[in-house]
Amino acid sequence: MSAVIKAGIVGATGYTGVELIRLLAGHPEAEVTVVTSRGNAGQRLDAMFPNLRGHCDLVFTEPDVERLAACDVVFFATPNGTAMGSVPALLDAGVRVIDLAADFRLKDAQTWAEWYGMPHACPDLLAEAVYGLPELHREAIRGARLVANPGCYPTAVALGFLPLLEAGLVDPAHLIADAKSGVSGAGRKAEVGSLLCEAGENFKAYKVAGHRHWPEIRQTLNQVADAVGLTFVPHLTPMIRGIHATLYAVLKVSEGTHNLQALFEDRYRGEPFVDVLPPGGHPETRSVRGTNRCSIAVHRPHDAGTVVVLSVIDNLVKGAAGQAVQNMNLMFDLSEIQGLEQVAVLP
Amino acid sequence: MSAVIKAGIVGATGYTGVELIRLLAGHPEAEVTVVTSRGNAGQRLDAMFPNLRGHCDLVFTEPDVERLAACDVVFFATPNGTAMGSVPALLDAGVRVIDLAADFRLKDAQTWAEWYGMPHACPDLLAEAVYGLPELHREAIRGARLVANPGCYPTAVALGFLPLLEAGLVDPAHLIADAKSGVSGAGRKAEVGSLLCEAGENFKAYKVAGHRHWPEIRQTLNQVADAVGLTFVPHLTPMIRGIHATLYAVLKVSEGTHNLQALFEDRYRGEPFVDVLPPGGHPETRSVRGTNRCSIAVHRPHDAGTVVVLSVIDNLVKGAAGQAVQNMNLMFDLSEIQGLEQVAVLP
Amino acid sequence: MSAVIKAGIVGATGYTGVELIRLLAGHPEAEVTVVTSRGNAGQRLDAMFPNLRGHCDLVFTEPDVERLAACDVVFFATPNGTAMGSVPALLDAGVRVIDLAADFRLKDAQTWAEWYGMPHACPDLLAEAVYGLPELHREAIRGARLVANPGCYPTAVALGFLPLLEAGLVDPAHLIADAKSGVSGAGRKAEVGSLLCEAGENFKAYKVAGHRHWPEIRQTLNQVADAVGLTFVPHLTPMIRGIHATLYAVLKVSEGTHNLQALFEDRYRGEPFVDVLPPGGHPETRSVRGTNRCSIAVHRPHDAGTVVVLSVIDNLVKGAAGQAVQNMNLMFDLSEIQGLEQVAVLP
Amino acid sequence: MSAVIKAGIVGATGYTGVELIRLLAGHPEAEVTVVTSRGNAGQRLDAMFPNLRGHCDLVFTEPDVERLAACDVVFFATPNGTAMGSVPALLDAGVRVIDLAADFRLKDAQTWAEWYGMPHACPDLLAEAVYGLPELHREAIRGARLVANPGCYPTAVALGFLPLLEAGLVDPAHLIADAKSGVSGAGRKAEVGSLLCEAGENFKAYKVAGHRHWPEIRQTLNQVADAVGLTFVPHLTPMIRGIHATLYAVLKVSEGTHNLQALFEDRYRGEPFVDVLPPGGHPETRSVRGTNRCSIAVHRPHDAGTVVVLSVIDNLVKGAAGQAVQNMNLMFDLSEIQGLEQVAVLP
Repeated sequence: MSAVIKAGIVGATGYTGVELIRLLAGHPEAEVTVVTSRGNAGQRLDAMFPNLRGHCDLVFTEPDVERLAACDVVFFATPNGTAMGSVPALLDAGVRVIDLAADFRLKDAQTWAEWYGMPHACPDLLAEAVYGLPELHREAIRGARLVANPGCYPTAVALGFLPLLEAGLVDPAHLIADAKSGVSGAGRKAEVGSLLCEAGENFKAYKVAGHRHWPEIRQTLNQVADAVGLTFVPHLTPMIRGIHATLYAVLKVSEGTHNLQALFEDRYRGEPFVDVLPPGGHPETRSVRGTNRCSIAVHRPHDAGTVVVLSVIDNLVKGAAGQAVQNMNLMFDLSEIQGLEQVAVLP
Repeated sequence: MSAVIKAGIVGATGYTGVELIRLLAGHPEAEVTVVTSRGNAGQRLDAMFPNLRGHCDLVFTEPDVERLAACDVVFFATPNGTAMGSVPALLDAGVRVIDLAADFRLKDAQTWAEWYGMPHACPDLLAEAVYGLPELHREAIRGARLVANPGCYPTAVALGFLPLLEAGLVDPAHLIADAKSGVSGAGRKAEVGSLLCEAGENFKAYKVAGHRHWPEIRQTLNQVADAVGLTFVPHLTPMIRGIHATLYAVLKVSEGTHNLQALFEDRYRGEPFVDVLPPGGHPETRSVRGTNRCSIAVHRPHDAGTVVVLSVIDNLVKGAAGQAVQNMNLMFDLSEIQGLEQVAVLP
Repeated sequence: MSAVIKAGIVGATGYTGVELIRLLAGHPEAEVTVVTSRGNAGQRLDAMFPNLRGHCDLVFTEPDVERLAACDVVFFATPNGTAMGSVPALLDAGVRVIDLAADFRLKDAQTWAEWYGMPHACPDLLAEAVYGLPELHREAIRGARLVANPGCYPTAVALGFLPLLEAGLVDPAHLIADAKSGVSGAGRKAEVGSLLCEAGENFKAYKVAGHRHWPEIRQTLNQVADAVGLTFVPHLTPMIRGIHATLYAVLKVSEGTHNLQALFEDRYRGEPFVDVLPPGGHPETRSVRGTNRCSIAVHRPHDAGTVVVLSVIDNLVKGAAGQAVQNMNLMFDLSEIQGLEQVAVLP
Repeated sequence: MSAVIKAGIVGATGYTGVELIRLLAGHPEAEVTVVTSRGNAGQRLDAMFPNLRGHCDLVFTEPDVERLAACDVVFFATPNGTAMGSVPALLDAGVRVIDLAADFRLKDAQTWAEWYGMPHACPDLLAEAVYGLPELHREAIRGARLVANPGCYPTAVALGFLPLLEAGLVDPAHLIADAKSGVSGAGRKAEVGSLLCEAGENFKAYKVAGHRHWPEIRQTLNQVADAVGLTFVPHLTPMIRGIHATLYAVLKVSEGTHNLQALFEDRYRGEPFVDVLPPGGHPETRSVRGTNRCSIAVHRPHDAGTVVVLSVIDNLVKGAAGQAVQNMNLMFDLSEIQGLEQVAVLP
């Protein structure tokens, strides 16, 4: 048996950070050895997150590269634009990196700069970075030094569209992704819009004119289809966790519902974290809460020409920390499901 | 000044019933004189709904036609299939009727029977009944004896699509309505799926294969466009009130965002209960909570060929009781906004 | 009929401010003429609070005394410590002032300074300021120039304990107030603890060692009883509005449940905003949501020596803006219920 | 190593049932082999609870004793009054029984009959049944054939009061337990009061006149103190899981805060599932959600004579299924923490 993997987490004060620690606390072959936070150095982690009392006695340290270089893998759970400042040094030190932020998700540095409002600090690494969607890039992830962990919306949307696009069944020029997210997608930042009194008992769309996940989703879909045209509308729904993507595509040829069901089942047979529901199913966000599962159903209402895919994940797990652990498992040649076998807490 | 209108409410134990009473309690020219409930006859209304203490001292009575015939108008806030049993007798007695259920919404008795699972009891009245969407049928409502109050989803969806279809700007064959509703849309029935522990902290689509509001929406849209093809996916969102309809249509010709904005503003100028937000707006369900307002925004993301309309209502007000009061105001030649001038309680 | 009262609101960007505007928008004898906000001067109010679209077209101005001096009454909906800087000048200008913050609630300047962490700017006004609990100080309020609007917890707790203490039925030395508040009590500040993801699906006590409302409650109770000993534990409950105070007191003499019920009914007979429920009742926060009502029930479980009072208000209405309007009505000799006759929106 | 324990669950369609299955799915030395439900026999368990897909492929069977007799232990997650009909036969068959309902919690059959509204079916077993609160009865549980799993409120309240009463520090005659529960405490029954639209955005007390957990709590406290007088007020809080008990007791002698803290830490040192927070702490229900932990803090506000204990559990885990697994571990001489080492999912 291999030695336990030493993991560092940069920016462990947010929701993806504490979720990583929760998952790794139950991982039999990995151990978190360093957690950093510039603002909270010296403070115990479990003073900030009491759910970790008795499970983790780490103390936040400053995010210095020397300390992180002693890890086998470093996860960045930082705001966009932070990881790219330290990643080159860590890679040089032989550390593998999984970035849960957006720094290495887009292949084109110019597009990245437009959407994230700053120049990219190490554009040369964009080509090397592997987009960590195991269902699409599993083999590349195994050998990667640097994994760009996908965004939450892009994970749910891509997993729902992939079977249809790979099979060439739908018109790629008119894809619609109507996505709904719990509020934890906005992170643990003190912002008025995320207050319980603002986001509770309320439903709204946001950033209809353009959301940073739009170019990311397009980039992924364009890898399996030509000339993707995507309308992406994100919404905020009054709950903590969960993404529900409702996807619409126009069938190019007459395809029966049965074939669509078989298409999805075949595509994801053997995938440990994609669960295609029986025909007629309606996945619920709560059924995957706290787990790394993507739950999918495919419908063709009224036997008409529009296919509807329902794709559900926990934005903090399959949409962030869980997928990161899945990627770590692949990178270190562990069983892909290690540390990710939780049953969703229901209700 | 005209005498105060005497209103009866059949089935005042549900959410649309108590909402009607709340609205009429503040109406200067109407008074609720009869509330009926087969199961609660003899009980005070405010014992069931303590928010009405001090505002209404009525006692539930049996729903007999004689008593209701003394009213000027009777609202049915009953399950589908109930109103049609009593409406002919009430009309014969000279009473005006507003049905908040679905009994008179569809013009075709056969279609109605298919979707509602029973034969229609008075199909001859279907032609006479006026579909009570004032923004489309205001003049017909003024003269109506019998108004079919629109469903909640159909109200939000129709108001969002009407300007585009009337102007012939979009392809009617590929309309998509992705609609999200609060749980009160399911009524005050004791059902497992509506429990806080089932519907709370959860998001899901339901009835993707076919929802009863689909033929109702199509019927309305077909009145202003030919060969409407509609994909309608309703979702349950973990809050009490509110519907958010996100509508997608493919532009037939190149229309700038500016023109779309003007189209909506022109269409609804003068409408007391449709509020077109400034360009780039994102309506919130809470901003219309408890009010009869429909709040709308129109977008054309990335200047591409798909127009996105966001249409928001309170399902129990503009989607039910408020629209019913608006219809009553029209039927009795009152100011259309009487009793409907509330400011939404926020937060 | 008197001329319409011109009201100014300082700090109208928080929840008590927007609630004041909602209530005054429906008030037949008052009009908001000035809203100030240092940070948002020049911005339309309804751009920040879309629920006010069509109801209020005011623009925020700087909070300068000259402009406010043109008002008949000025409401301060500001953080603690702000009003006391401007109140003397406004009073000198002949303007009546209602402070919704805590600046004038405590009679003792030294105690105020200890609890609020700063010296009081105008301690000489503390004696003149009238504590605006109409059920206790109605006559004094009528003649007041300066009203200190009570805190939310103190309102709910005082109204529950007053009948027992005034009648001398309970031991004042061992009073317990276990109070639960919705999150809006924390205001519209961007703080991590008020995020939906922190305060949602969670329940906790806070400030058990000492909350600023403790001395305020004691001051009020000491006006009707000697040597009050009070244990006050506030809790945060995952909802937007509402306070539920559960009060415990030890009966000094054997008093039957029936007498307790009569005691409360007698004490509050004629009070327009205190509703004593029938025996055995359990008031709900939602039944008073958006209204100025305090709903109360009194119990004596197992006929033992402890009396339990359940006292419920909407913290933003009877606990803030509604009580302020009630005080304004008294100060200007209007009907006490003007603008405060809403029926709670339920569900 | 011992063979895996075969567990049966009677009534696995409710929230405590599915929670038991979730916990046992991760238990290395137990396996659920039978799940019964009279109404759902033949149906797959994971069709009702999709979170179990891939984790449990059991099918509901009829609850016949023969099948259950093949188990080592049978859990009853049934309504009150059901278990007592089958327990004698199962015990005769050599099966150990853990009843999560109330059938065997009270020692006095007459008291049981009064509170549960039916005669007890096997009163002779009441003396043998061990009340399964490991922190009080660990040794007795080890040898038990029949364990009465404590109620949710009684667990939170007893763990909070025990140290004070055992040490004789407080007056047992005037104990107050103000307890707040999430809605899942009401079970998965279709009842109007548990609907999201009734229980959401609302807070209320209920059953102040008398709740069935009152005699259960008294019985436990009377085992460690004389003449217990208890006022118990349960409340419904708008969230799914969690109980927060706020406990008040009058100190008999002058005891400093420091000593109280030490008292609690000493009492629970070594207890795997009771976590005494550092001085000044405020436990949150979310920090124990999905876990078997009871989180406790003790306060003495204003150094006065009343001690305040805050005791928090997940009602479905330490208050039901988790405590049942803890009891099973003790009965079968396993490590007490097996299957119960989850980290709470936060947020």
